[in-house]
Amino acid sequence: MASGQRGPRRRDVLVGAAGIGLGAAAAIGVGSAVRAAAGEPTFGTSRVVDTSPHQPGIGTAGAHGVFIAVDLAESVDRDRLIRLLRLLTDDALRLMAGQAPIGDQEPEMAEVPANLAITFGFGPRVVELADPAAMPEWLGPLPSFSIDQLEDRWSDGDLLMLVAGDDPLSVAHAQRMLLKDVRAFSTIRWQQTGFRNARGALKEGTTQRNLFGQIDGTANPQPGTAEFDRVVWTGAAHPSTGRGGAVPEWLVGGTSLVLRRIHMNLETWDEVDRPGREASVGRRLDTGAPLTGSAEHDEPDFEARTPQGFTVINPVSHMRRSRPDDPTQRIFRQTYNYDHPVAGVGGMGAEVSDSGLLFASYQANPATQFVPIQQRLADGDLLNTWTVPVGSAVFAIPPAAPPGGFIGEQLFQ
Amino acid sequence: MASGQRGPRRRDVLVGAAGIGLGAAAAIGVGSAVRAAAGEPTFGTSRVVDTSPHQPGIGTAGAHGVFIAVDLAESVDRDRLIRLLRLLTDDALRLMAGQAPIGDQEPEMAEVPANLAITFGFGPRVVELADPAAMPEWLGPLPSFSIDQLEDRWSDGDLLMLVAGDDPLSVAHAQRMLLKDVRAFSTIRWQQTGFRNARGALKEGTTQRNLFGQIDGTANPQPGTAEFDRVVWTGAAHPSTGRGGAVPEWLVGGTSLVLRRIHMNLETWDEVDRPGREASVGRRLDTGAPLTGSAEHDEPDFEARTPQGFTVINPVSHMRRSRPDDPTQRIFRQTYNYDHPVAGVGGMGAEVSDSGLLFASYQANPATQFVPIQQRLADGDLLNTWTVPVGSAVFAIPPAAPPGGFIGEQLFQ
Repeated sequence: MASGQRGPRRRDVLVGAAGIGLGAAAAIGVGSAVRAAAGEPTFGTSRVVDTSPHQPGIGTAGAHGVFIAVDLAESVDRDRLIRLLRLLTDDALRLMAGQAPIGDQEPEMAEVPANLAITFGFGPRVVELADPAAMPEWLGPLPSFSIDQLEDRWSDGDLLMLVAGDDPLSVAHAQRMLLKDVRAFSTIRWQQTGFRNARGALKEGTTQRNLFGQIDGTANPQPGTAEFDRVVWTGAAHPSTGRGGAVPEWLVGGTSLVLRRIHMNLETWDEVDRPGREASVGRRLDTGAPLTGSAEHDEPDFEARTPQGFTVINPVSHMRRSRPDDPTQRIFRQTYNYDHPVAGVGGMGAEVSDSGLLFASYQANPATQFVPIQQRLADGDLLNTWTVPVGSAVFAIPPAAPPGGFIGEQLFQ
Repeated sequence: MASGQRGPRRRDVLVGAAGIGLGAAAAIGVGSAVRAAAGEPTFGTSRVVDTSPHQPGIGTAGAHGVFIAVDLAESVDRDRLIRLLRLLTDDALRLMAGQAPIGDQEPEMAEVPANLAITFGFGPRVVELADPAAMPEWLGPLPSFSIDQLEDRWSDGDLLMLVAGDDPLSVAHAQRMLLKDVRAFSTIRWQQTGFRNARGALKEGTTQRNLFGQIDGTANPQPGTAEFDRVVWTGAAHPSTGRGGAVPEWLVGGTSLVLRRIHMNLETWDEVDRPGREASVGRRLDTGAPLTGSAEHDEPDFEARTPQGFTVINPVSHMRRSRPDDPTQRIFRQTYNYDHPVAGVGGMGAEVSDSGLLFASYQANPATQFVPIQQRLADGDLLNTWTVPVGSAVFAIPPAAPPGGFIGEQLFQ
């Protein structure tokens, strides 16, 4: 039956090949923005637009996402790491283009990318292997916060792969292809799967709700704006990127990802009535408007007072505490919900699901942008009553691979 | 803050109310087919069409589905069971109509039903409590098959709730509302979550692939046809429904659900090349055509032979073994994929995901329609090399609730 086999079957063939990155890039026409044909009634063949010099998947979120962190094997040295990164780059480019990676045994499953976007991130170990002098000062675990109840099984990791797209089968296939790539080099540390509203379920531009029913992410900078660029991309003209150390040159055009796994207790949240919930957040639950306004994007008035003399917006509300007075303390959040079944429970008050947020935050410098916000929330935020951070990881997100090159190649110069 | 509270907060208010089923049905206009407004650019507000006298969700599968089985508490008697079923019926009707159930603390999340469909099923315990004389002969565990490696945690149960729809947030919200209903009455036995291609990812009518990359379900009867009706609905003019006992009158217009959780070993499947895979199934992987044909729906020729004298379609292939010679042995399958992350594994050959199929099969009589097929596959099917049934459950699926009544009310007459 071997005569009918298509192409190389063993991925080792590929791992040993030189220059595959270049070949793959040429083959799939990377660098041009590719869209599904006009009039196509489905979005299955839609591909993400080219986002060079940045990686794809930042600022546009597929409906389904899985964050995967692996720990590199002891035996992985600089050369093996480069081989792995070449392999991953090649496979990711093909998958995003709707083409099967070499050695894909289910190539038809690659034909429905549905806006598949694959984003890679590096933990400290990758930088150490490549160029220890190029370590960003902020790359490593965050300072610990009083609210944290972190578990190793949801924290840290050497290499991040974020696979996101609008079709869960496409995401599952891409996830599997990448896991096949990495397993000779590493151990899976964690995989965290999440979802947002389905593509097409909400009008474009609608801010989504989380499992608490809150409109979640109103204050986000809008992708495509200068403010977004300043907040997110390393090396852009944002005052905060220069703080806490020089910008590592290899990261220009990249960013950082802080992934916090935040457990949300839906049972105790249920015990709170709507006014109590709205006071905790500082916003109306129906429209997302600040309690001092009438529309979602109205500016809150933190000085407005009730007839009794209290501020309308509670000073310990989530909105008040998360909003910085320092305009450089901004982040771009791109969150996914998780909601995993629990079995064997009954009775009132038992948690019937393991639910929460995969709170993914992108910013040029987590030390100066993310940490001050998180510190304020840890010091006081009414929402902390019902939420607990159970996982935390920080990754450097390199810029897009250079044409014909591999992801993070700038770090290996 | 209680003055701002909307509507009853405690669901106990509802549990004690009489005639709520009628009120809810009147309020939401059940009985009329409801669709999103024409020209609506999104499908979030789309509602399932009325399927009376049958329950919704059978023949049309949302992209996301969760099967939930609960075990009733010892204290649940006939009267409490009726109260529970009234409550569930009312909440399900509202949720499917895009309205919040009474006491919903996140009513905005109900506004995006996205074709939400909720289907209920009864295990033997419900029938015993209602009317032991009305027990279908087939309601209970299937005969054991040699291939089974069943686990209690994925098997059996007293009451089934299947929540399916095209938006994962909508499904999560409905799931939670129903779990809140049942928890004072029962313990969650299992929850099994699965996915299909996203709505809009594939052209209408395309047969989907499973995680083995196979086009899966080609031979299914098409919903809306007389054959579908004969295969699925109890009491329709299908010869098989009369076998193995009289048709219980309360089930006329209902059906049965067999849910088999089938683990698929993607690692050992990977070791098989394409000709080997195609021989195992009896179909081409690219088009799904029988190995003797050229298009997916071509009739297979089981007599066709190779020049060497072997049948082109292996007699132990999945297609050959699953296809009955007796035309009454047909089922309607509506499967979901599952793909759950595994952590802490590495190296070649380790299973990096817990993957498989939630194989949901609807048929008027499982004893005469499902069991003979499953027995043949257990006796010999090349696909068994890579698949293992790890869960099994059978439920009676009552017809739609009578107007103003509750689900299964026909059983309680």
